[in-house]
Amino acid sequence: MSNLLDNYKNINDIKNMSIKEKEQLAKEIRLFLIDKVSKTGGHLASNLGVVELTLSLFDVLDLNKDKLIWDVGHQAYIHKILTGRKDKFETLRQFGGLSGFPKRSESIYDFFETGHSSTSISAALGMARARDLRNENSEVVAVIGDGALTGGMALEALNDVGYRKTKLIIILNDNQMSIGRNVGGLSTYLSKLRIDPKYNKFKEEIESTIKRIPNIGKGMAKYLERIKNGIKQMLVPGMFFEDMGIKYLGPIDGHNIKEVTEVLDRAKNIKGPVILHVITKKGKGYEFAEKNPGKFHGIGPFHCDSGELCVTSCDTYSKAFGDEIIELAEENNSIVGITAAMRDGTGFNKFAERFPDRFFDVGIAEQHAVTLAAGMSKEGLKPIFAVYSTFLQRAYDQILHDICIQKLPVIFAIDRAGIVGDDGETHQGVFDLSYLTHMPNMTVMSPKCIPELKYMFKWAVNQNCPIAIRYPRGGDNAGLQLEPIKNFKPGSWEVLHGEGKIALIAQGKMVQHALLVKEKLKKSGINVRVINACFIKPLDKKLLEDLVEEEVNLVTIEDNVLRGGLGSYILEYVNSLDKKVKILNLGFKDEFIPHGKTDILYKLYGLDPEGIIKSILKIV
Amino acid sequence: MSNLLDNYKNINDIKNMSIKEKEQLAKEIRLFLIDKVSKTGGHLASNLGVVELTLSLFDVLDLNKDKLIWDVGHQAYIHKILTGRKDKFETLRQFGGLSGFPKRSESIYDFFETGHSSTSISAALGMARARDLRNENSEVVAVIGDGALTGGMALEALNDVGYRKTKLIIILNDNQMSIGRNVGGLSTYLSKLRIDPKYNKFKEEIESTIKRIPNIGKGMAKYLERIKNGIKQMLVPGMFFEDMGIKYLGPIDGHNIKEVTEVLDRAKNIKGPVILHVITKKGKGYEFAEKNPGKFHGIGPFHCDSGELCVTSCDTYSKAFGDEIIELAEENNSIVGITAAMRDGTGFNKFAERFPDRFFDVGIAEQHAVTLAAGMSKEGLKPIFAVYSTFLQRAYDQILHDICIQKLPVIFAIDRAGIVGDDGETHQGVFDLSYLTHMPNMTVMSPKCIPELKYMFKWAVNQNCPIAIRYPRGGDNAGLQLEPIKNFKPGSWEVLHGEGKIALIAQGKMVQHALLVKEKLKKSGINVRVINACFIKPLDKKLLEDLVEEEVNLVTIEDNVLRGGLGSYILEYVNSLDKKVKILNLGFKDEFIPHGKTDILYKLYGLDPEGIIKSILKIV
Repeated sequence: MSNLLDNYKNINDIKNMSIKEKEQLAKEIRLFLIDKVSKTGGHLASNLGVVELTLSLFDVLDLNKDKLIWDVGHQAYIHKILTGRKDKFETLRQFGGLSGFPKRSESIYDFFETGHSSTSISAALGMARARDLRNENSEVVAVIGDGALTGGMALEALNDVGYRKTKLIIILNDNQMSIGRNVGGLSTYLSKLRIDPKYNKFKEEIESTIKRIPNIGKGMAKYLERIKNGIKQMLVPGMFFEDMGIKYLGPIDGHNIKEVTEVLDRAKNIKGPVILHVITKKGKGYEFAEKNPGKFHGIGPFHCDSGELCVTSCDTYSKAFGDEIIELAEENNSIVGITAAMRDGTGFNKFAERFPDRFFDVGIAEQHAVTLAAGMSKEGLKPIFAVYSTFLQRAYDQILHDICIQKLPVIFAIDRAGIVGDDGETHQGVFDLSYLTHMPNMTVMSPKCIPELKYMFKWAVNQNCPIAIRYPRGGDNAGLQLEPIKNFKPGSWEVLHGEGKIALIAQGKMVQHALLVKEKLKKSGINVRVINACFIKPLDKKLLEDLVEEEVNLVTIEDNVLRGGLGSYILEYVNSLDKKVKILNLGFKDEFIPHGKTDILYKLYGLDPEGIIKSILKIV
Repeated sequence: MSNLLDNYKNINDIKNMSIKEKEQLAKEIRLFLIDKVSKTGGHLASNLGVVELTLSLFDVLDLNKDKLIWDVGHQAYIHKILTGRKDKFETLRQFGGLSGFPKRSESIYDFFETGHSSTSISAALGMARARDLRNENSEVVAVIGDGALTGGMALEALNDVGYRKTKLIIILNDNQMSIGRNVGGLSTYLSKLRIDPKYNKFKEEIESTIKRIPNIGKGMAKYLERIKNGIKQMLVPGMFFEDMGIKYLGPIDGHNIKEVTEVLDRAKNIKGPVILHVITKKGKGYEFAEKNPGKFHGIGPFHCDSGELCVTSCDTYSKAFGDEIIELAEENNSIVGITAAMRDGTGFNKFAERFPDRFFDVGIAEQHAVTLAAGMSKEGLKPIFAVYSTFLQRAYDQILHDICIQKLPVIFAIDRAGIVGDDGETHQGVFDLSYLTHMPNMTVMSPKCIPELKYMFKWAVNQNCPIAIRYPRGGDNAGLQLEPIKNFKPGSWEVLHGEGKIALIAQGKMVQHALLVKEKLKKSGINVRVINACFIKPLDKKLLEDLVEEEVNLVTIEDNVLRGGLGSYILEYVNSLDKKVKILNLGFKDEFIPHGKTDILYKLYGLDPEGIIKSILKIV
């Protein structure tokens, strides 16, 4: 019975295993996961929660014709192990190695790529409808967490699923968590289904009452039967889903392989859409992850024995944001905080504890978060919505339509802007400068270092227009001690070094690269100016005019795609001046950026100091 | 009792009216609306549906402290009439006149600006939370249609509303329609609440059964009471909302002023959030609109007596799309159509009738629509999602994350791109070139005339990548007979006129303006080239290189914002060539574009032929 994982060959193996063997395999997979992820870092807790569920799915489904879609996709490690990628786990999330998310290029069994939350039901429904139009016979299964279910598009999809009655199995993987603890009416409802002892007691009492009703005449019996049926109907959990037109099965214990397998088999035989409510425990089977599933959601390398991180985290932009925002909120009671299920990641945790009444976690619901902020700011509050750059993409329309048209003073604290590294292409925050700068009335800023972030927020809370402040993941590691700007003037940049016939105009962390470039070029006898474009919008038109007047050539550096980014914006303005200077735009080219350490990626795209120098030397 | 509307002065008047007077006022308002909108065009049917509701709201609320938010906002005409704008109705939707949507600049009683669907609950919740943090005492009311309720962000908001129990009144204005007939599980559920005779019969039977249960001992009585309560709970409609933690009241007749007023009063006294289910009839009180509410949703000027349009519509891009797509689908059975509640507006109606199994109306749910298309295309179908440019903004993230990363061959038929005219700033489609061209793997096209649109789709359905084809509202009115391109090659533009030291590079309908400009300049002895940038992405690099080599100056013309648009894209590429030519970018500047006839707006922004000539002469 041992070494089942070592001897595992392909997806058919599971079908021949006994329950006991599968339980044994689950144990081995857990040990494997803990060992591997402790070295590479990755999403541990969510994967530990779905070991048995994945094994049951691989048993019941035939993945050579059936389709299985993992919502978000960070819980697909076991799926990867079971589909030929076990031996590549040392490369997980490393540049050139296994992705932390489903990738069609990795396996024919990765049917749909995910990364952002709440997409799986839509995608699965599309696949199921394609199957039906071709009169094929196969299962399509979406596995979605209870957190992801509160995302608007998942609810849009449920609405459509229930309407057309397409055959589809939705597995609601209910662990009461998104990354942190879940919120919202739906969550309350699910937990009622799950644990409410009053509910169960009520059900028992009713049932016993019915039994004790004295036997009455036959005429009455049919009415009583009807009452009983009515009561039964009332006691069926999941009316929420049934009301939507989707058959509800559950709740069942997601760690009981026998039970999950049986109910999955039952679900396969149901015509039309079915939702299978599976209760799992995030972090299951690893003590430290069970106790602290948030910490072990996405984690860096750690010591297996203690659960302690190998490297304790340095100062980060997120932490600086979290600290500063508390100070500002102490002074200004109109400041409120909003997060879309990213309380800890954005550094909002201390604020949430200090000002529980002024902090709003809306769940995975970026669209609602933005328009909620619009309503708040319309009535005089000063909302700060902290969100990762890549997730703010979900609220593009709300920023434009609900905030910018009315020019409402909402502050966007855009964390994880630029490249984020290990999570890869679905999570890179390299589009925000492009999509925010074409929105009228929007101000876009970026601090060159952590201390500057604090002054930016201090300034921003006193402005009367929408402001986006975008900053990178992690901290400052260039080893520079930079003096922050303390007073900002819209469209006024900082000249850090003012001599030379070339000016490097950089934004955010790229200013640090520019400064390193300046030092290195100096040694080669080339003097370049360095300018901190702390405002990406509005541009410093005056400074640009002066530079052009002096015939200084410009090199723009940004950690955003080139198309429509800072460099493009500068180019548009300088072009309108009708003077001739050379402009070189450095940034990410028009492709999706893979996963890997940020240093490797900067180098790959020529945005490390050496790469920048190489580009500059071409135009000198 | 007559001339109540003529004598109406301000919002307090309604509070002193009897029910009869309010009924009379409702009649007068209907006549007023029909008369005015028949002249200006506008959203008639939705407004006729909420006359009594609006009067009741103005009676029960004190709008000097309470807040009222109209979802979408096209049903706020009565609100406008009652808040001092009655005499401006001749200017409705005309340039410089009344907007067709709530505008804070028009009235202090327009509390929040809307235009896109499904935002009102989020905004209202924000306002209600602001009220609570300030310990103020006022009502916040959101009026949302049953169509808008299926939008993901409305459901995200409901989830949040139910969780925190903030006091808030949500009026569900249920007319079984969005613009067309509603779809989805939620809609089915609402109609069940509303009309199911079985449901009502069942309820009656149960109630009579309970009464007829013989009197039994005291010991049993408490159990029976419990059963009765349980049954009652089961029979309460609106468990869907109650499950979310929101008190449900209704359904009530939205045209019965007495009933609506009473229940609104009741709602005010409920602590926490309440949803009031009001049944209304779209088009109520105007025979033609009742019979054909879709036609009278947004309508041009019409004859009151016959309900016939004053101008019968000419050939439009939407119609050409609808015709072509049927032809293509006859030949290729992998083609499927998707709409987000815009079947008729996008020209999809005939396709829907011809291929009901291959047509999917997902409701107001653009996010789901896009990822549904992704799932379908992943399994070999060729989905065409037809959508207005401004509404596609809702699905920015899904296009990027679910379509582009996987390079899935989904076709976006983007209608109402460029300026749309009367609907104004919330509906202008002037951002799509900016937000689509920075997405890797995306192809973006635009036809110069209606016949070219057909060939574009013919070509696009045979490609294997995501393609967006964007085209304007209405038809071609420049009086030009243009030969369409019949064969496309990615990144290959059409040279319509090839001589001169200036090249006009235009996209879509702007090509027609460019041709008119060419003719006029020719008369002044200036020869300009005209190029149809049928691909906005990829650019025709070869042609650009040739032009630059020949030192031809470039004038780009687009009906999109300048920031990040076609001109900006060309500028980025030409700049990288390191050759000197002048480039003049023409397009919309960085501001929201108001409502008005498109000709007026083109002129205002210098995009009419005369304006373009003026700009060109500056650089000649």
